[in-house]
Amino acid sequence: MPITAPEGHPEGASAGDPEGKTPLVLVAAAALVDADGRVLLARRPAGKTMAGLWEFPGGKVAVDETPERALIRELREELGIDVEQSCLAPLAFASHGYDDFHLLMPLYVCRIWHGTVTPREGQELRWVRPARLGDYPMPPADAPLIPVLRDLL
Amino acid sequence: MPITAPEGHPEGASAGDPEGKTPLVLVAAAALVDADGRVLLARRPAGKTMAGLWEFPGGKVAVDETPERALIRELREELGIDVEQSCLAPLAFASHGYDDFHLLMPLYVCRIWHGTVTPREGQELRWVRPARLGDYPMPPADAPLIPVLRDLL
Repeated sequence: MPITAPEGHPEGASAGDPEGKTPLVLVAAAALVDADGRVLLARRPAGKTMAGLWEFPGGKVAVDETPERALIRELREELGIDVEQSCLAPLAFASHGYDDFHLLMPLYVCRIWHGTVTPREGQELRWVRPARLGDYPMPPADAPLIPVLRDLL
Repeated sequence: MPITAPEGHPEGASAGDPEGKTPLVLVAAAALVDADGRVLLARRPAGKTMAGLWEFPGGKVAVDETPERALIRELREELGIDVEQSCLAPLAFASHGYDDFHLLMPLYVCRIWHGTVTPREGQELRWVRPARLGDYPMPPADAPLIPVLRDLL
């Protein structure tokens, strides 16, 4: 299922739905920052939508779950690390209308975790200096977050 | 119904629910900024929870509504102004566990609107210089957004 990004739609309507009713998908994401100020990117695997693109680790927030709980869970599942809620700092968010859903993605910064970052799902990982984040093709929703990270780090 | 703010709960659990399952409430809010760089605050009316506290205009995002559509709707209802989606710039978000729900509140900056800001619901309004935002008592969720606004403006 290809995902294309409608741009500039008035009143927040998504491309495929002129009445503007599209499912809202909430994804909590993390910018893990190492001691050298580099940010962790993970590559979407083959077979998934937008395969090959780079993104911030994280995942969907389940019903009646807090974004922090979801993110802590996803970081453990995807990267094998443990993170305290107090080490998740709200930074920015992305809000993006795709064809068949609208993504809302709060992004947290995390500089402290327990364990070693490991690709638990066979995904490609890379620690990237902020100035180089733009070299990595990302889904349209993630791209506006790059300038925010550059300013911070 | 008093709302108190649990702090520092591990794993994102809210005070009243050790398993961490609490309803997630999504509220879209706007920092309207006028030509002098002042930010609009609105006072919560008597009879509502946290009455008398100051907050950013906005409201709950309905099911399958985008945050932008919700905010555009609320700004029209509360303040009588029309805002284009392209004039809503994602800035930051608040994520806060209250006793019986968890609030996720994306905050957009808006500098351009059509019409004149008017208190359509009898609420007290005030245009506040960023340096003075801290003078206004706010719900615990809104407070961390003040430094972000000060840095921006």
